[in-house]
Amino acid sequence: MADEAAVREQADAVRRLKQEKAEPDEIAKEVAKLLEMKAQLGDEGKAKFVLKTPKGTRDYSPKQMAIRERVFSTIVTCFKRHGAEVIDTPVFELKETLTGKYGEDSKLIYDLKDQGGELLSLRYDLTVPFARYLAMNKISTMKRYHIAKVYRRDSPATSRGRYREFYQCDFDIAGQFDPMIPDAECLKIVHEILSELQLGDFLIKVNDRRILDGMFAVCGVPDSKFRTICSSVDKLDKMPWEDVRSEMVGEKGLSPEAADRIGEYVRLHGGLDLIEQLLQDPTLSQNKLAKEGLGDMKLLFEYLTLFGITRQICFDLSLARGLDYYTGVIFEAVLVQQENEHVEEPVSVGSVAGGGRYDGLVGMFDPKGRKVPCVGVSIGIERIFSIMEQKVEASAEKIRTTETQVLVASAQKKLLEERLKLISELWDAGIKAEMLYKKNPKLLNQLQYCEDTGVPLVAIVGEQELKDGVVKLRVVATREEVDVRRENLADEIKTRTSQS
Amino acid sequence: MADEAAVREQADAVRRLKQEKAEPDEIAKEVAKLLEMKAQLGDEGKAKFVLKTPKGTRDYSPKQMAIRERVFSTIVTCFKRHGAEVIDTPVFELKETLTGKYGEDSKLIYDLKDQGGELLSLRYDLTVPFARYLAMNKISTMKRYHIAKVYRRDSPATSRGRYREFYQCDFDIAGQFDPMIPDAECLKIVHEILSELQLGDFLIKVNDRRILDGMFAVCGVPDSKFRTICSSVDKLDKMPWEDVRSEMVGEKGLSPEAADRIGEYVRLHGGLDLIEQLLQDPTLSQNKLAKEGLGDMKLLFEYLTLFGITRQICFDLSLARGLDYYTGVIFEAVLVQQENEHVEEPVSVGSVAGGGRYDGLVGMFDPKGRKVPCVGVSIGIERIFSIMEQKVEASAEKIRTTETQVLVASAQKKLLEERLKLISELWDAGIKAEMLYKKNPKLLNQLQYCEDTGVPLVAIVGEQELKDGVVKLRVVATREEVDVRRENLADEIKTRTSQS
Repeated sequence: MADEAAVREQADAVRRLKQEKAEPDEIAKEVAKLLEMKAQLGDEGKAKFVLKTPKGTRDYSPKQMAIRERVFSTIVTCFKRHGAEVIDTPVFELKETLTGKYGEDSKLIYDLKDQGGELLSLRYDLTVPFARYLAMNKISTMKRYHIAKVYRRDSPATSRGRYREFYQCDFDIAGQFDPMIPDAECLKIVHEILSELQLGDFLIKVNDRRILDGMFAVCGVPDSKFRTICSSVDKLDKMPWEDVRSEMVGEKGLSPEAADRIGEYVRLHGGLDLIEQLLQDPTLSQNKLAKEGLGDMKLLFEYLTLFGITRQICFDLSLARGLDYYTGVIFEAVLVQQENEHVEEPVSVGSVAGGGRYDGLVGMFDPKGRKVPCVGVSIGIERIFSIMEQKVEASAEKIRTTETQVLVASAQKKLLEERLKLISELWDAGIKAEMLYKKNPKLLNQLQYCEDTGVPLVAIVGEQELKDGVVKLRVVATREEVDVRRENLADEIKTRTSQS
Repeated sequence: MADEAAVREQADAVRRLKQEKAEPDEIAKEVAKLLEMKAQLGDEGKAKFVLKTPKGTRDYSPKQMAIRERVFSTIVTCFKRHGAEVIDTPVFELKETLTGKYGEDSKLIYDLKDQGGELLSLRYDLTVPFARYLAMNKISTMKRYHIAKVYRRDSPATSRGRYREFYQCDFDIAGQFDPMIPDAECLKIVHEILSELQLGDFLIKVNDRRILDGMFAVCGVPDSKFRTICSSVDKLDKMPWEDVRSEMVGEKGLSPEAADRIGEYVRLHGGLDLIEQLLQDPTLSQNKLAKEGLGDMKLLFEYLTLFGITRQICFDLSLARGLDYYTGVIFEAVLVQQENEHVEEPVSVGSVAGGGRYDGLVGMFDPKGRKVPCVGVSIGIERIFSIMEQKVEASAEKIRTTETQVLVASAQKKLLEERLKLISELWDAGIKAEMLYKKNPKLLNQLQYCEDTGVPLVAIVGEQELKDGVVKLRVVATREEVDVRRENLADEIKTRTSQS
């Protein structure tokens, strides 16, 4: 295969032969080789090189990073408030680690090219790697958070904050505990984070896989179709019931009667009252799984009442969540657009957090099938970030992308060495300092740089100041200037920038 | 292709047919199908599933994360002190973005499987993505840092901190500036970081691609062999000169005379004196490139003298750096093992930081070939992290993996609801609080949890305390207990944990 370097080398060879006045047909032969290489390269490079990031991905500019760091900080603070440790895992896993964990979504997994080694795939979420971590290290109790990028070959809709590479912020509690206490804490965490980020009204929908499975059973769905019918129900937030119904009956071969019975249940949502009502439901309450799920749901709502957060929580029988590994409580948080609010460009965002209980996943990895019950939540940061970014754009807020406290400047020429000495002193004293990388910058340009980037102070060295052992400190906002003794300069800068 | 779910569904079909008392040969047909599927699955799953992370990668445990965060914090603080912004880019790039940038190392790039879309590769470093970012966004001046994982299919040597997935911490300055000022700042940054991390003595080797190229020219290396001979010289830190020489002559077809002449130069290292000596060298000084490089090297050392860091810096003609894209100054920092030091298990680590000037890279991406000169440094965090980890292991220091301030506990039974109410109040007041997820935990177990995890305080609720409107606050270390009025509890906890 020809590459540019080889072509260059071949061109060199031709040039050398010419200089050495070699036989014409020797040169001709080498030229032919060169043309062939070029042709090959041209063929390979037929589609013109496009300067872009891969489909469904993006860069973060410094301004976007500043916003992102704020969101992360809120989330990490919350996770730490709840006593979580932190772990990290590789961006790819053995392909078989991910196999059979995601149901219909498995087709969205990115595989790496097999280069004679292991078969690898990019992680699809942080939950399966966590379960693999627990099993591999034989850990039976752990409360951890993990913030990292995950990868899904989905149809990107970047304007709505939907990417193929995106961050997940996960908090999970693993261990054998009394029922619903960790589950309630996960919902409290979602509530805290969405409240603190001030994204507007939100609603956390809650359901239970056991209630769904019980419901499918009493509606007459065969066992083997539970997962695939569950996937159809999961689409109810994006598709009307009629379309979901025809998918169930048409594509998935469910009987119309069973579908209609499901249709009756999935339109139900409410609170403790609905739970009580379903516990009395003559059909559903006969099912062991459904009864267990409803009993736990009641307990969960009691704990959520103690936390004072039930106003934003809704028991919703249409909530299914696509992933295969859930076994108990499942939940999903959505932002609610206020109808009476005058939004110029309303952002349409879906789910911003989701999670649930997965008691079987660790056992799938453990050589002895030893189970570790888990419950966790994942915050979908990209959609939140899109909203925050739009809010900042709409506001007058000016975001600084550096933390520089002072610019080391000079008013006269030939003072580069003095600026270098002073800035070195300031760095060594822990001051965040910059200078222009010019031998003789104009004072106006140095001041303009501060205006542009928000640097609050300028330390100006000049012949006279050097003689007097002082530095002129200028406050950019007020243009006030004071002479500060050089040995006090770092402290003076610290004092003056400690409020900001 | 058979998967477990399909097999299960097929088994269901067989069971159904049996229940429905279907024709025996219909059942037999379905059973045959089932057996075939199972056989296929067995064939695929022949190699037993191994519970591990991919070759050359690792997880980070909470304790390792605590150490890692410390190292990152030192590095980020330094980068911010020098006024850097931060960006982020996707973990993969279009394959052609990386093509032709890394020379012989290109074979170490991880490619993704082509799934009918773009050809993608995992990033090999953060420098090429940065250059792509600058060109794509038409940015001509920027000082940024980027901390992220990069991927190289190298032979892993995990005991020496060498992985296939590892973090790089990069700081780069892009823009047209007066010579050597940003270059000197990059070296200052390496010096600050390695000093602050207290890793022991270190040495920063410096050279210049132009000096190397000039040296190759005057030694009689043909132009077309510059890069490949440069790669050989780059191995001098791992191989003796004789082996490098025979690679040059044997594999790469260099004349023995040229190799020997190179051998004379690459054994030279020193400071300003050596630079002066080479500027007088009758052969080398005749070469335009070498002269330019030596002139800039002299300027660089003058600036480094002003920064007061020349003691750890060494001009070394054997330093080559493998990557293709460098055009000027190059440098590499190594830790120096003190010979008189009694180290029980000396860690053998190579380079912990490296970098250089790459003035042509952005132009390779720009449609009009517009150049943006750049210089940057990359801190190799994994090796540093290995050393830090070993230091912590050797010391008596106990590392906490959570920041929990208080455990909400109870001494009597039936107080779960009261604990939930209290912990919710504390969370809402910003206190980092945990509780055991048990209905009726024993006080001893609750206290033991604090001992194990380093939680300093316990807030104990009991019948009497509830009646009195107080909470008993216990200091784990001293076993001291005080009653605190419930409304003052959060403040009391904040005060008592503010020193730690």
